[in-house]
Amino acid sequence: MTVRVGVLGAGTVGGALITRLVADRDAIRLKSGVDLEVRKVAVRDLGKERPFNLPEDRLTDDSLAVVTDPAIDVIVEVIGGLEPAGDLVLAALRSGKPVVTANKELIATRGQEITEAAKRTGVSVMYEAAVGGGIPVIRPLAESLSGEDIDVVSGIVNGTTNYILTAMAKEGRAYEDALTEAQRLGYAEADPGDDVSGRDAAFKTSILASLAFGERVAPWEVETEGIENVTAEDVAAASARGEVIKLIGSARRGVDGRVEARVEPSSLPADHPLAGVSGVTNAIFIEGPSVGRLLFTGPGAGGQATASAMLGDLIQVASRGRAPRVRSAHDGTPRRQVLHR
Amino acid sequence: MTVRVGVLGAGTVGGALITRLVADRDAIRLKSGVDLEVRKVAVRDLGKERPFNLPEDRLTDDSLAVVTDPAIDVIVEVIGGLEPAGDLVLAALRSGKPVVTANKELIATRGQEITEAAKRTGVSVMYEAAVGGGIPVIRPLAESLSGEDIDVVSGIVNGTTNYILTAMAKEGRAYEDALTEAQRLGYAEADPGDDVSGRDAAFKTSILASLAFGERVAPWEVETEGIENVTAEDVAAASARGEVIKLIGSARRGVDGRVEARVEPSSLPADHPLAGVSGVTNAIFIEGPSVGRLLFTGPGAGGQATASAMLGDLIQVASRGRAPRVRSAHDGTPRRQVLHR
Repeated sequence: MTVRVGVLGAGTVGGALITRLVADRDAIRLKSGVDLEVRKVAVRDLGKERPFNLPEDRLTDDSLAVVTDPAIDVIVEVIGGLEPAGDLVLAALRSGKPVVTANKELIATRGQEITEAAKRTGVSVMYEAAVGGGIPVIRPLAESLSGEDIDVVSGIVNGTTNYILTAMAKEGRAYEDALTEAQRLGYAEADPGDDVSGRDAAFKTSILASLAFGERVAPWEVETEGIENVTAEDVAAASARGEVIKLIGSARRGVDGRVEARVEPSSLPADHPLAGVSGVTNAIFIEGPSVGRLLFTGPGAGGQATASAMLGDLIQVASRGRAPRVRSAHDGTPRRQVLHR
Repeated sequence: MTVRVGVLGAGTVGGALITRLVADRDAIRLKSGVDLEVRKVAVRDLGKERPFNLPEDRLTDDSLAVVTDPAIDVIVEVIGGLEPAGDLVLAALRSGKPVVTANKELIATRGQEITEAAKRTGVSVMYEAAVGGGIPVIRPLAESLSGEDIDVVSGIVNGTTNYILTAMAKEGRAYEDALTEAQRLGYAEADPGDDVSGRDAAFKTSILASLAFGERVAPWEVETEGIENVTAEDVAAASARGEVIKLIGSARRGVDGRVEARVEPSSLPADHPLAGVSGVTNAIFIEGPSVGRLLFTGPGAGGQATASAMLGDLIQVASRGRAPRVRSAHDGTPRRQVLHR
């Protein structure tokens, strides 16, 4: 069965995902049992060059028409930001279309409204790519660790700031200097505000905390401090103490039972599991009384890695829409169904 | 709704799981929305002391009666080994009961038959705990990475041998000496054959390879060498080269398209991501062209960690048996349902 996909946005992540969906359509179908067809792509500028190869009539500048089009089964949202992404996601869910998104700001801010809308029409919304790029952490937290009474979730969840702090520590650079280099290499945006202020990390910490503790932790409840005021001297002083400064997002349950979440530059001993995580790598640390200490490490950003996580979600969403079946890697049929029936 | 659980076996893992199910029943229900009741526990010796607190009539020595009991909804298999576990799991699936197991030997050896039986009655079989103890790796491989064309999966998947090799490297101990200490500390069994021969690692590698490459890799297709012949001299010579010997299970697709899987002592450079994994810790490394390099680290064994992973599976299985719903951590309702509807 062909599952018809509508994609909202075709920037870095969207472009990478559409390129894979188009170029690897047969390979994906053979491996997953799901035939994913990119039916429509909503973009702002119809005249712009695109990295993917699609007939011209697949592109449109009318996002709402894509979302409500009865000829589309699943919506992928890669516009980013709160609006118009939020209203489009809600419109898609209301018209009975599952949604895959990597939009951490939207999930952190309007997750409740979005999941309630999905519940009402009985479809799903998946966002594995919203935290940690290609690192699977949403599904492990939400499912594998659903039996664990988690004590702490913490991590390096922003690659840009980790790149800057690593360059400051390893090369003795000043903050501004390291930021300029990150921008030159494409690791920081022209306007790096959301990264260096800790805002991006706060969205991700909000999502991780909500999943880990089973209750809503809004982004504005995450006490947030960025790295703008970290100086070369701070980094050198930490190094002299045998420590490393990292921007850490963390959440734990306080003595009063409330979840305390924060994002802040933290000085870690060199043997701390997060101290050795350098460059744009992300790492998420989860600790619980039964499961002990778990660490997930990988590339936390980049179009390819994020697109890979979104493709995983898309395959799940597309498969689950059909009649329940059980298949297994062990009998040569699609592996994702090992866990489903 | 109460989900009635039948547990087959009450050894280290089974005892830990039943203890949690009994002691934390209310907490689990509040957090997950699923009320898990231990209805029956099948044991070999009815007279033996147990760590959990259950009415005497909940224990039985008739496993088959538990599996076919219409008053039981879900079966947890923690007997281990091929028989009688295999026939009991099949009987459970045939009578329409989902199964949660940590039995790597059974899944690696008879996974095909088991998933086909599950498919016929439309129920699920889950085995997150079969590899890596409490480290979520089965679900990430089967679902989150279902869109990734994985190049390599490799790792340290046996805690006993990693403990022994770590003691040999760090304390200069001889193999026999390190093994005896591991036994004294409970990290190795009285009969350590399955661990030191690489047999246990081969089962796990078979399961990882089958999931990663979407085709069956039987345990007998995993070329296996244990650590029995690793000498203190080998370890010292590796150390002199700046390397560390680890028992690595790995699988990759060869140039002929076939999956090549092996378990063998491997000398790794000190800066290799698996080189620093010491003691009973497990680590699984996954690499793909889009997602890059992912590393999952954590306690790979132990009753508590394994029981935590099984409880996660049990909550999923118990929830999915009911009518589809969507709930979210963001609205204060059970978090595992964020990803399901």
